This record gives sequence, structure tokens and C-alpha cells, in this order.
Amino acid sequence: MQRVTNCVLQSDNQILMLKKPRRNWYAAPGGKMEPGENIKQAVKREFKEETDLTLVDPELKGVFTFVIQEDGETVKEWMMFTFACKKYEGKLTDYCREGELEWVPFQDVLTKDMAEGDKTIFDHCMNRDEVLYGTFTYTSDYQLLSLQLD
Amino acid sequence: MQRVTNCVLQSDNQILMLKKPRRNWYAAPGGKMEPGENIKQAVKREFKEETDLTLVDPELKGVFTFVIQEDGETVKEWMMFTFACKKYEGKLTDYCREGELEWVPFQDVLTKDMAEGDKTIFDHCMNRDEVLYGTFTYTSDYQLLSLQLD
Repeated sequence: MQRVTNCVLQSDNQILMLKKPRRNWYAAPGGKMEPGENIKQAVKREFKEETDLTLVDPELKGVFTFVIQEDGETVKEWMMFTFACKKYEGKLTDYCREGELEWVPFQDVLTKDMAEGDKTIFDHCMNRDEVLYGTFTYTSDYQLLSLQLD
Repeated sequence: MQRVTNCVLQSDNQILMLKKPRRNWYAAPGGKMEPGENIKQAVKREFKEETDLTLVDPELKGVFTFVIQEDGETVKEWMMFTFACKKYEGKLTDYCREGELEWVPFQDVLTKDMAEGDKTIFDHCMNRDEVLYGTFTYTSDYQLLSLQLD
């Protein structure tokens, strides 16, 4: 089962977002866990690889189950661990192999094109303190079928 | 990949522990996530199944990667999500299929026989507020080989 970690980094009333080339959808930088890693190691490593920035004290804000369904059958399931962070070290990279990195003002974050469920996640990370739990069910072309939050 | 949830339930300076028959080791009640569940649904369902108690507002206290190694090779990897909770509803079951349930006074919890890494987890859940991240590497007969905490 795939496990993904990502982080919503806030600084100066902006969020660091990654515009991915496939659909021009925005997301939080991050990526797949490697075998034996814990989730905090994974998010720090992935964030550094994509941005050159070192996260300082990222905090877990969401644990999500993602289900991909086709014709009512589950074809894939994975987990995503979303952190939020307000402090970092380093200088943002000029080049990210995954897409374009962009500091986006708070008020513009939810207006960007993104997977529908990701708006819930960004909104939570920017505005709430507790950990959010949920299951997002998507079609294989990323139309949100259902959303269950706890 | 197997995903397990469990919960350290505190009440009246006691912890509800489960003594499992295989090694007579103590553990926190819990069990495997089912497809499509989020981790909070899973821990509430599993805890209820094993104890008849309904957890009220369980909070995530640990996210752990478990690695089983034989002769230096990883043969299995799974995730464990550990909650802590101070409130419940219902009456403890007379019979649990997984072992014997026992309310254990705080000061006795860490003296019980258990997997070595579980002492760290109980200690954290009883005494700390933040989320702990870590990787526990065991042999297939549950000797702790290494422990990495974040």
C-alpha cells in the first residue's frame, strides 16, 4: 500500500504550493514514503527533495485514506499523512522536477485548481489546530465520489 | 500493507490492557483497519469489538512504522496508529476473544510483560501530549532490533 506524506508550509501569510504539470492542479509538496521511514522523516525528506527547504517542527494535521473506485469496485487504496509547518530553513529551489513551486497568498489558496478533496485539506491546515481524519473516494480520473470526515 | 489501530484508554488512574494468550504479553486493545476506513473509525470499531466500550474523543498519540527483519532483510512492514482516550461509554465486556482485559494501575503498566517497544508507546501515551513518530524494527519472534523516534 502506497503511503504519501506532504506538508502545507505557511510563511508571511502565504502557502507554498506546487503546480503539477499533468492537470495544472495545485497540491502541497510531498511524496511517497520509503520503506522503514516514519512519517515525519518521510515528509522532511520529500519536502527537502522538492523544494530545497528544511521543515522545522512540522506537525501532523491530517491522516487520510484514499480510495479509487471504478464501477463501484475499489481498485486502489492508499494513505496520506498531511503536516503543517510554519518554520523552515534554506532557500527555495529554482527548479523542482515535480512542477512549479509558488508562494500563494492565503486568500488565493482555495481558488486554485486542485483535486476537490484537497480544498478541504488546505482549509483545515490553514484554519484548524486538531488532527483531521477522513476517507476520500475518487474515480481513477480524480472526480470526488464521496468524502467522509471525522 | 497491514494497518493497525489501538488505543490506550485511561480511567481512574488505570489503563485498560489486553493480555494476549500467545506470549502472555500485554498490549493496548485494537486491531486491523478495514478497507476504506479512516484511522479514527477503525480504532473506535476495533475497541468496541474487543471491549464493548465506545471511545469518546480518542486523540492520535503515535504513528509508527513496524519493520520485521530476518537475517538483515525486511520481510514485512506495517503501520500502527496509536490513540489515547480518557472517556468512554458502555460496560466492559465479560469476554474478549483476543485475550484477557484488565484495568492496570498507572504505576504497574510498564512492569507488565510486553513487546519491548510497546513500553515506549505506553509511556508516551500516559505522559506526553504531542504525537510521537517512530520506526520499530523487530525480528520475527519480536525481539527489538532497533528503535528510531522522532
